[in-house]
Amino acid sequence: MIETPYLLFLGDAPDMLAAKVAIGIRDWRPGNAVGQFRLPGCGADLGLTDMTLAQARAAGARTVVIGVANRGGVISHEWKKVLVTALEEGFDLAAGLHNLLRDEPDLRAVAEATGRKLHDVRVPSVKYPIADGKKRTGKRCLAVGTDCSVGKMYTAMAMEREMHAAGMKATFRATGQTGILITGDGVPLDAVIADFMAGSVEWLTPDNDPDHWDLIEGQGSLFHVSFSGVTMALIHGGQPDALILCHEPTRTHMRGLPDYTPPTLEALRDMVLSIARIANPACEVVGVSINTQHMAEDDARAYLAKVEAEMELPATDPYRFGAAPLVAALATI
Amino acid sequence: MIETPYLLFLGDAPDMLAAKVAIGIRDWRPGNAVGQFRLPGCGADLGLTDMTLAQARAAGARTVVIGVANRGGVISHEWKKVLVTALEEGFDLAAGLHNLLRDEPDLRAVAEATGRKLHDVRVPSVKYPIADGKKRTGKRCLAVGTDCSVGKMYTAMAMEREMHAAGMKATFRATGQTGILITGDGVPLDAVIADFMAGSVEWLTPDNDPDHWDLIEGQGSLFHVSFSGVTMALIHGGQPDALILCHEPTRTHMRGLPDYTPPTLEALRDMVLSIARIANPACEVVGVSINTQHMAEDDARAYLAKVEAEMELPATDPYRFGAAPLVAALATI
Repeated sequence: MIETPYLLFLGDAPDMLAAKVAIGIRDWRPGNAVGQFRLPGCGADLGLTDMTLAQARAAGARTVVIGVANRGGVISHEWKKVLVTALEEGFDLAAGLHNLLRDEPDLRAVAEATGRKLHDVRVPSVKYPIADGKKRTGKRCLAVGTDCSVGKMYTAMAMEREMHAAGMKATFRATGQTGILITGDGVPLDAVIADFMAGSVEWLTPDNDPDHWDLIEGQGSLFHVSFSGVTMALIHGGQPDALILCHEPTRTHMRGLPDYTPPTLEALRDMVLSIARIANPACEVVGVSINTQHMAEDDARAYLAKVEAEMELPATDPYRFGAAPLVAALATI
Repeated sequence: MIETPYLLFLGDAPDMLAAKVAIGIRDWRPGNAVGQFRLPGCGADLGLTDMTLAQARAAGARTVVIGVANRGGVISHEWKKVLVTALEEGFDLAAGLHNLLRDEPDLRAVAEATGRKLHDVRVPSVKYPIADGKKRTGKRCLAVGTDCSVGKMYTAMAMEREMHAAGMKATFRATGQTGILITGDGVPLDAVIADFMAGSVEWLTPDNDPDHWDLIEGQGSLFHVSFSGVTMALIHGGQPDALILCHEPTRTHMRGLPDYTPPTLEALRDMVLSIARIANPACEVVGVSINTQHMAEDDARAYLAKVEAEMELPATDPYRFGAAPLVAALATI
């Protein structure tokens, strides 16, 4: 769908958290990322080669992917200058912003004049049904977080990689722009009309082989008041058999909500189980995924051991220490 | 905002069930309904004066509201003739149909030529913000149900009337097409894009006087897997101080979901409180609203007494026995 490889556009992202899309592509499809493009003041750095548009073209890049996601998503004047030039130099553009590429008259005009494509992966391309709540065959695992941006997508991606390596049947199911940009398929859940959210998740995770696992990308958090409704629809539409709790221990407040404190893993477990069992009474929490990126390795290992003891569940940082304990835990379902 | 008062268009509605919207306007904003317009064969009668378009204009009506569900999901030729004439005679049109007024080329052309407005209340007309979770001044009450269609809107409307009669400051806040047509304003929450659901509810219930109550119209149910995400956003965007539990005791399965059993009032109370206190730690369940329409009066009174004893909360059927106990319960907040 989207021509690869990519030049990853980081714009003036204030920090690495804002560059979630680009980081995901670098980590899960590294062969697709030939370099990064940054504007003055950019606070994100993927560790890829900084390239001009011309250098990226010479290195084979076909599409400029906007690898940053900011609240409300607006295409600024500074971004626009680069994007127009990219189209003129032969790149397609791909983005998952609320502010659509196709809604910018100048981008649209240049894309039409140059024959280049504008991929807005956030826009639903399917007329989703209203959820019917019927039980489906096959198994489903969902990662849920104490907050937004704590590693839910990474967890599902890492589990898929681990399961494929072990010869298991597993499919990562993208529900956000990052996952869709990486895999080329999925439901842009946060852009779906409210009445059809749960139905779109049912559509994304249909009947499958009894030993097949859908690894559903989580969104938001039940405890994040801006986006909890999206998380709720994901749980009730996905009907997960297995839940993975995701947590970032150094977070002092909910992302973007200075007055809100992240919940404990115990509070998340209790709330998500009571909600998930409405749709699937057999649902269990099987493991914990800790994002230890801001912790020294000894501290991270000690924290994981503490979580394992307190929660009586396997705990790992799938990015740092591997997803094997989480995949093994699926065997209990 | 829709201009009031209205002429209520009943078309060729087969019966009163099809005229739910018009009945709501007559019952809750009688001052908005100057008369009714019926086509030959109409089986609905609101008990209002039958008026021609000219008579309604002379009586001050500004908008023709389509107060019925249309047959087959299309705006028929017979309806169209009346609606075109209405535009030509100076009325705006308002409807909550799936078949949008604006999607009818002839209606659109006449509206443009005459400078009249077409209000499709199912479609959001505002660019809502993402919720910021900030505490607002004033108080908010939300009705939540064990299922969909158990009387949440009616409960809030009845409380508003009772509060106005007592000289209290209260505003019904519509979140569905019926409520929006009744009051002329609101958020069509089930048609809002997922990411903006909670923000639209914050927008709907802004800062207010410390002794003012917003009575927020409920939607869906936390236990209804098709629509629970909408309910969740309503709770976290609304930040209610007070919750009313709504229940219809004769329901044997969730509306439209034959495999799902409605929860107990205790289960609803426990789940909704744990969720609501994320946004407002002071939130309390203050009362229970029982829809007793399928119960004999003695049975209804006995059931209410049982609920009051078991839940240790005031319980009433606001339609049958009045909303006073629920309004009195707000004083505890």
